[in-house]
Amino acid sequence: MTDKALTIALPKGALYRDAAARLRAAGIDVPEHVGRKLTVRTADGTTLLFLRPSDVPAYVEFGSADCGIVGKDTLWETDRNVAELADLGFGYCRLVLAGRRIDRYHEGAPLPTFLRVATKFTRSAETFFAERDLPVELIPLHGSVELSPLVGLADLIVDLVATGTTLREHDLVVVEEIAESTARFVVNPVRFRAKYDALTALLERLTAVPA
Amino acid sequence: MTDKALTIALPKGALYRDAAARLRAAGIDVPEHVGRKLTVRTADGTTLLFLRPSDVPAYVEFGSADCGIVGKDTLWETDRNVAELADLGFGYCRLVLAGRRIDRYHEGAPLPTFLRVATKFTRSAETFFAERDLPVELIPLHGSVELSPLVGLADLIVDLVATGTTLREHDLVVVEEIAESTARFVVNPVRFRAKYDALTALLERLTAVPA
Repeated sequence: MTDKALTIALPKGALYRDAAARLRAAGIDVPEHVGRKLTVRTADGTTLLFLRPSDVPAYVEFGSADCGIVGKDTLWETDRNVAELADLGFGYCRLVLAGRRIDRYHEGAPLPTFLRVATKFTRSAETFFAERDLPVELIPLHGSVELSPLVGLADLIVDLVATGTTLREHDLVVVEEIAESTARFVVNPVRFRAKYDALTALLERLTAVPA
Repeated sequence: MTDKALTIALPKGALYRDAAARLRAAGIDVPEHVGRKLTVRTADGTTLLFLRPSDVPAYVEFGSADCGIVGKDTLWETDRNVAELADLGFGYCRLVLAGRRIDRYHEGAPLPTFLRVATKFTRSAETFFAERDLPVELIPLHGSVELSPLVGLADLIVDLVATGTTLREHDLVVVEEIAESTARFVVNPVRFRAKYDALTALLERLTAVPA
């Protein structure tokens, strides 16, 4: 049966709770809380890997996991070769261009000629500005991007927004929506053939409309 | 006096406690715990920015902070133009090449011809392997790198080790030491001239040997 047992890469953080609930509904015994554990073997032989969201594609591409759940926003930023089989619908958020309310860019105030934009989403931001022929200096950051316009590091930010609370708390406003993201079910293309029955069965259970 | 008031970029995480203690010893009223705050103005007019460690160089290069405290390991991985003025001595850790005990690479077992190495320290790892003429596929990860050799994602990892507990817990061992890191005091080169008196005074207080 090891043949059919799956290894599933799961994202810690914002997507975890919904991903775990969806897998439990699909019959896999996923713990509610992960704690410091990196991996768990469930009663039915499934192995779960608890990863940083941005690490899920690497574990799936190299076959250390057969499949995984990951936000579309993470897939935008990676070159990793994974097959996206389903939109799971949860984890909705928007990638937006945002700025300070006081700068009025959201009301059409002209952008600075030499535009500086801070973001964790360098690739998505590059594509967005390239399509608009806007020259821009991107400043890659790793956390708390919302601070950067407040201290003059950047004119604008490109960031994910779920509820909008973080923007509001810092008096930032959406200037333009760039894209929408939800959680996706991804598989290793080679494993998809080798474990076709187990992976399609899981896919069907994950995407079944709840009764 | 705004002229002389400094903005200091501080790293959240492992270095924070020692960095805050050192600044307090230098007369700056730094809070013990940061919580969700991104910035604080102290009684003496100093502004503190609480940042992801890897974001400190960007805030200092662009002058959103005049100076900052950051681990040498972060400076290895960045192109940001900041001037390193002092080794503050605390936050000691080592960048090491590590592998599974069972693979016996630490005892001289031959490395695989097609070597895969997972790391958060891509630049340092690239330099290390290039100097040894070892062809290698680097797999950039963002967290829990210690999991990767256990599930076959990588043969070896390049990672920071402070106490060694994480390696021991996963039955990993150091194969080779690559470099040593401690916290550094960095400044924006232009601001160093503009705020020379304030920055050299802070530098002296930060590096003063405690009586």
